[in-house]
Amino acid sequence: MTTLSAPPTAPEADGRDHTALLASLREAIGAAHVVTEAQDMAARLVEDRGLRQGTALALLRPGSTEEVATCLRLCKAAKMPVTPQGGNTGLAGGGVPDGGIILTTDRLNRIRQVDPTNATITVEAGCILANIQAAADAVDALFPLSLASEGSCQIGGNLSTNAGGTAVLRYGNARDLVLGIEAVLPDGRVLNDLNGLRKNNTGFDLKNLFIGAEGTLGIITTAVLKLFPKPSARATALVACTGPDPALALYARMRSQTADTLSTFEYVERLGLEMVIDHTPGCSDPMSEAHPAYCLIELTGNGAQADLDTRLEGALEVAFEADQIVDAVIGASEAQKDALWALRENLSEAQKHEGASIKHDVSVPVSRVADFIKVATQACMDHMPGLRPCPFGHFGDGNLHFNLTRPVDMADADFLAEYGAFNRIVHDIVHEMGGSFSAEHGIGTFKRAELRRYKDPVALELMAQIKATLDPDDLMNPGKVL
Amino acid sequence: MTTLSAPPTAPEADGRDHTALLASLREAIGAAHVVTEAQDMAARLVEDRGLRQGTALALLRPGSTEEVATCLRLCKAAKMPVTPQGGNTGLAGGGVPDGGIILTTDRLNRIRQVDPTNATITVEAGCILANIQAAADAVDALFPLSLASEGSCQIGGNLSTNAGGTAVLRYGNARDLVLGIEAVLPDGRVLNDLNGLRKNNTGFDLKNLFIGAEGTLGIITTAVLKLFPKPSARATALVACTGPDPALALYARMRSQTADTLSTFEYVERLGLEMVIDHTPGCSDPMSEAHPAYCLIELTGNGAQADLDTRLEGALEVAFEADQIVDAVIGASEAQKDALWALRENLSEAQKHEGASIKHDVSVPVSRVADFIKVATQACMDHMPGLRPCPFGHFGDGNLHFNLTRPVDMADADFLAEYGAFNRIVHDIVHEMGGSFSAEHGIGTFKRAELRRYKDPVALELMAQIKATLDPDDLMNPGKVL
Repeated sequence: MTTLSAPPTAPEADGRDHTALLASLREAIGAAHVVTEAQDMAARLVEDRGLRQGTALALLRPGSTEEVATCLRLCKAAKMPVTPQGGNTGLAGGGVPDGGIILTTDRLNRIRQVDPTNATITVEAGCILANIQAAADAVDALFPLSLASEGSCQIGGNLSTNAGGTAVLRYGNARDLVLGIEAVLPDGRVLNDLNGLRKNNTGFDLKNLFIGAEGTLGIITTAVLKLFPKPSARATALVACTGPDPALALYARMRSQTADTLSTFEYVERLGLEMVIDHTPGCSDPMSEAHPAYCLIELTGNGAQADLDTRLEGALEVAFEADQIVDAVIGASEAQKDALWALRENLSEAQKHEGASIKHDVSVPVSRVADFIKVATQACMDHMPGLRPCPFGHFGDGNLHFNLTRPVDMADADFLAEYGAFNRIVHDIVHEMGGSFSAEHGIGTFKRAELRRYKDPVALELMAQIKATLDPDDLMNPGKVL
Repeated sequence: MTTLSAPPTAPEADGRDHTALLASLREAIGAAHVVTEAQDMAARLVEDRGLRQGTALALLRPGSTEEVATCLRLCKAAKMPVTPQGGNTGLAGGGVPDGGIILTTDRLNRIRQVDPTNATITVEAGCILANIQAAADAVDALFPLSLASEGSCQIGGNLSTNAGGTAVLRYGNARDLVLGIEAVLPDGRVLNDLNGLRKNNTGFDLKNLFIGAEGTLGIITTAVLKLFPKPSARATALVACTGPDPALALYARMRSQTADTLSTFEYVERLGLEMVIDHTPGCSDPMSEAHPAYCLIELTGNGAQADLDTRLEGALEVAFEADQIVDAVIGASEAQKDALWALRENLSEAQKHEGASIKHDVSVPVSRVADFIKVATQACMDHMPGLRPCPFGHFGDGNLHFNLTRPVDMADADFLAEYGAFNRIVHDIVHEMGGSFSAEHGIGTFKRAELRRYKDPVALELMAQIKATLDPDDLMNPGKVL
C-alpha cells in the first residue's frame, strides 16, 4: 500500500506521565477493564490482514454508554487520543491506533429491544452482526446487512464505516438501515437521538454525521435498526454472457422486470470463476462450456416460490432471445442455490492462491460499469503485459472489486511495487467517470491521500470545519479520514 | 398558532443604506431578477395559508448555481439575511422572510439529466415536483415522492424539508431518494457532491446535513435523485375495522404477507370519512353500513395484476377470519381504485367545512400508533367535551395527522384559543411514547418552541454548533428551526 505512513511516536514515549489518567480510568470502569499489558493488546494493535502495526498506551473496555462518556471526558482532560474499535475487521486501517488509547465496544453487546410491529431492533455498538441477524430471525424478520466478516464484526463498526455488503441492491447500505443512534461526543456529552421513527423532521440530521465518520467525530454506542419481512422464497441463477456490455443490458432488463424482488446482481469474469473452481474444494463449473463473464442473480420475495421461479425464468428467456445471455443455470434446490452462491463467496479466498493482488474498491454510475470494466482492464493491461485482471462484485450497485492478480511469472514484491501506479490508473478512470475510489471500505489511513486528491475541495474544507467544531483537540481517532 | 412571534423589524427599516448591495446584485444577476416592488413580492411574503405575514427588502431570482453563489457572497459581505424559497408551500413557516432578502429558486428549473440505467435523474432545485415525476414517467420510471402540493412545490424545498407524503411506506422520505447534491454555502462556496453513486464512502455524509435543514445551512441548488421501476399493477382496498387496535394487527399482517409490494396503509375514522362523503361531490360511502375505522391499503408491483389481486384478497380473507376487519371493498377497476383514493385525498379539504381545526403532524413507533390514537383522543375529549377528533394519515409510517375539529356549537376563535393547550396535551403524549411532534412538516417558525421543549439538549447544542460553524453571522434563513 503506497498510502501507508509510519505510525507517529506512541504516547507512552511522549515523555508525559499518564499514571493519573490511568488511575482515573481504572476508578471509572474497573481495573479489569483497563488493559495495559502489551501481550493482552497485541491483537488490537494490528490491522486484520497485517497491513499495519499500531501502538497504544492502553485498551479500555467500558461496559455502558455512561462509562464510554466518562472515558472520553477523562481522555479529553488529559489530551489523550482515543481510537474506537469494534471487531477490528475494517479494510482501510481505520481501527488501528497510532498511539493513545484504544476504546473497544466489546462489552456494549446487549440487544436492548426487538419490536416486530415497529420492525426495529435496538442494539448496542458491540453486538456482533451475526447475532443481530439471528435476533431478527428469531422474530421471523430480516436484518439484511450481510458481509464476509459478519461473524466477528460489530455493528458499531459497520455503522461507523457505513458498511455495504451483498444486500445493498435491495436494502441499501448500513446508513439506510438506521433510524436512530446514541453517540458519545469527543468531550463526553451523550447525544440521544435513539428514536425508532420512520418520520421525524425535528432539526438537522445528526445521525448521518456519525454514520460513516469512522469514529472521528465520536463513538456510536447504540442504534435503532430497521427490520424487514423475512423473504419466504428465493430464485437463484448463474448466467453466462459474452462480456460486461450484455451483462449491463441484462441488469437493466432484470431491474425493470423483477424490480420489487431483485436482490442480487453480482458479476465475475472467467478468470475469477476458474480461480474458485481450481482452488475451492467442492466448487465446480456448473456449465459445460467456458464463457467470458457470469452474473449471479437472485430474486427474493414473500409470495409463492413458483411465482418467483416464473419471473426469473421469464426474464431470462427474453434475455436469451435478445442475445444478452448465452447460458444459464437455475438453482432447482436450496442446495443448488447455495452451490451457485459458493462460486461468488469463495472468490476473495481463491485469489490468494494465485499470488499477490492489487485491489480497488470502486464504484461508478451503474450506466458506466461496463465501460469502466473495459477501459480500466485495457489501461492496466497496457501498463503491465501479462497482468491478470479479475474484476468482480456488486455490478448492480456500480461497485466493483477491481482486483489485479500478478502475472504468472512475476514475484509478489515486484508486482506490489506497482500498487501506487495501478491506483493512479484505476482511480483516475473512476474519477473521470464520476465514480468513487472507495465505494464501501471507507478511508481509514490507507486512502487519506486519495481523499485529498479526488474529493471536492469544498467538501474537504467542510469536513475539516465540522471536525474542528466537534473535536477541537483532534483526539478522536486522529490520523484517520481527514 | 401559539408559537408564532411577530416578525422583527424589516431591514429596509434598519437605518442602513442598501443601495450599493442592490446595485451589486443587479449587476450580478440582471436588474430584471432583483425585484423590490412590494406588489411584485406580495405572494412571496405570506405563508401559503395566510398564517404568517413576512417582510423583505428584495426578491432575488438567480438563474444558475454561480449566480446563487454570487448573491450569497454579496449578501454575506453586507451582512444581509437571506431566506431561500421554493414553491412557498411549506407548512411550518420556514420560507417566509422576516426581513432581509428572499432568494427564490424559480429559475433553477432545468432537468439536467435522466439516466434510466443508473436509475437517476439530476434536477435543479427549482424544478416543480410534478415535472420531475413526469420526466421519470417519460422513461418508464417512477420518482415516488408524492404530496398534495406536487403541482407547485419545488424539489429544493422538498429536500430542504425532507418531505414525506404518501409513498414513504415503500420508498422512504425525500432524504432516502437522494444520491448527491450541489449546495451553496452561506459564504458563497459551492459544495459539489453531485454524484449518482449507490455506494460512496469517502468522508463525512455532508448531503444529509443540508437535507432537512430548511435552508439554514445553505441552499441546495441541484440534486441527483433515485428512480424506481414503474409499477405495472396495483391492488387497492378500503377495509373497515372496529378501531385502531385491529387496524394495527391488520397492518402487521399485511406487512409480513405482502412485504415487497405494500405501498399504502392509510387510516381514517368514521367522522373523517363522513366529512368527505358529506362535503365532496362524487364521493360516497362504498359500504352499506357505518364502521368505526377504515384503512386504505394498496399493493403495487411489477408482476401480473392477477398475482397482486390474489395476494391482497388472500391476506384480507385471513384478516376476516381473525376478526381484524369487518368489511372490505376491493377496487375492481382503475376507476374504482381512484374512487377509494378520493376518500383519503379529500380529507383535508372536507374538514374545512366543519369549522376550525387544530392540527398535529406527529409520529410514534408503529407499534404504539393504536395506543396513541386511543390515549390522545381520550385526553383531548377530557379537555373539551364535544370536541370532534379526526385522526387520519400514514398509519403504516406511525405518522398521524391528529386533527381536532371544533365542537359543533363552538365559535372558531374560542376553539383556536385552545391551540396551545391541545399542542401540549398531544405532544406530551407523543413525547412520552418516544415519538416526534413534527413527523413530516419540519420546524420552520411555527414549531421552534416545541423543538426547544422536546429535543434532546445535546442535539440542540450540536445543531447550534454546526449552524455557528457554517453560518457564523446567522444570515441563512435566520429565525427558522434553531
